[in-house]
Amino acid sequence: MSSSPAATRRVTRRVSVKLVRLTVLGCCGAWPTAGAAGSGYLVEHDGFRLLVDVGYAVVPRLQEYVAVDELDAVLISHGHPDHCVDLNPLLRGRMLRDDPPDPLPVFAPAGELTAVLALDRPGMLDAGYGLTDIEDGDRFEVGPFAVHARSLPHSRTNLGLRITAGGRSLVYTGDSGASPVTPELARDADLLLAEASFVDELPWDSGRHLSSAEQRGRVAADADVRYLVLTHLLPGTDPAASRAAARRHFTGKLAAATTGLVIDFDR
Amino acid sequence: MSSSPAATRRVTRRVSVKLVRLTVLGCCGAWPTAGAAGSGYLVEHDGFRLLVDVGYAVVPRLQEYVAVDELDAVLISHGHPDHCVDLNPLLRGRMLRDDPPDPLPVFAPAGELTAVLALDRPGMLDAGYGLTDIEDGDRFEVGPFAVHARSLPHSRTNLGLRITAGGRSLVYTGDSGASPVTPELARDADLLLAEASFVDELPWDSGRHLSSAEQRGRVAADADVRYLVLTHLLPGTDPAASRAAARRHFTGKLAAATTGLVIDFDR
Repeated sequence: MSSSPAATRRVTRRVSVKLVRLTVLGCCGAWPTAGAAGSGYLVEHDGFRLLVDVGYAVVPRLQEYVAVDELDAVLISHGHPDHCVDLNPLLRGRMLRDDPPDPLPVFAPAGELTAVLALDRPGMLDAGYGLTDIEDGDRFEVGPFAVHARSLPHSRTNLGLRITAGGRSLVYTGDSGASPVTPELARDADLLLAEASFVDELPWDSGRHLSSAEQRGRVAADADVRYLVLTHLLPGTDPAASRAAARRHFTGKLAAATTGLVIDFDR
Repeated sequence: MSSSPAATRRVTRRVSVKLVRLTVLGCCGAWPTAGAAGSGYLVEHDGFRLLVDVGYAVVPRLQEYVAVDELDAVLISHGHPDHCVDLNPLLRGRMLRDDPPDPLPVFAPAGELTAVLALDRPGMLDAGYGLTDIEDGDRFEVGPFAVHARSLPHSRTNLGLRITAGGRSLVYTGDSGASPVTPELARDADLLLAEASFVDELPWDSGRHLSSAEQRGRVAADADVRYLVLTHLLPGTDPAASRAAARRHFTGKLAAATTGLVIDFDR
């Protein structure tokens, strides 16, 4: 894996081999509300900075923690713009300078980034990234992280991601309707970061590709995860109601994501 | 011009017929730095809210002032993503609700929004906007504003915009290299909001499509504008140096744009 020329600048803030740290950069479902951002999760271990999803307004948030040229890799669940559009300014920020860092490794389902990569003129940002297509069942390494990807049902190809390092596992659903694969992927995970667009009732046309907090509580209980973090709440959804709905089924640690939430997993 | 169903909610904050108000929502050139946003300028008069350019992370900023369904129109200088990409979440925020407002009038050079409108699946947001192509020389009305558009040189079609209401004129350059049309468009304006990517020296390959603060100071002096606001400074550019460069030529009121800057033009 290539390393950034800015590596020396990381020392004071780097997350050690003893920790896996999750930082929520944005967690709005569908579109960002005032002062907020779309899906973006910084996952760090042993000095490596992995960004999982890069939705609306995530890049200005990211830089409150990490410079754009200090990021080591990006992993994208699916190609809806609230999950990937800020890949464009991220690549601009790395490329439009005199000393661009090495190309950014980007992992995404095949074809899902076509629209976001077409925002600038063809070729302009090509030297700034190396794109690896990932698909259902893939197991691969990103720096110190082992990743297992499983397809979960959505209106376009969406990969659930099990990310493991230092003996700790974080499972992220992307956006997805109910599937027996979700508890399978999340089995015994330390943390399940689960899209919960709705509280409990789902609109008739949404159940195949999105989930409720109540459903995620049931999945977390079934999979015996230690910590459930509800995310991607649609604007206007009450986080307390979402937590209560998940709590009907899940007795473990529980939170609704907020911008700037940091969760450390000790070894 | 259609009005939003949310009109009744505006009363407490609406800008009266006595004022034209400019609010800078974002002003980063090329890509947004920590906590910042791309180009986005809210221009208000007589209760009408016009958004000029909708760059990266502008929609979360906009909502610190105006709900997405309270916006009355959008005017876009050109199709680079740092000037238009947040049209996508703006339309999502208006459409993905039970009671969507009337379609948003959007004015842009022909074809410049093709990439941003392709971020979601074809047709998904079509009912949310009405697109009017504008071109060099056009004069048109947007609510209480009279707009005059002139083509200014850039790497893609870019329209400079003279926006007049209540006897006050604001001229916006979009991104543009040197042109005799700029001082012509800006003649005697109350405010010239001018892209100034660089301080004074321009990289050899940038002079045809971007400008320096020094050049903008000369234009402001030539056009006899009252107030010059430098904007779109590239990340890392020193605003004090930019102001000093413009000051070599221009003796009027002068500022470098900052997020949240509000300028009121009294009648």
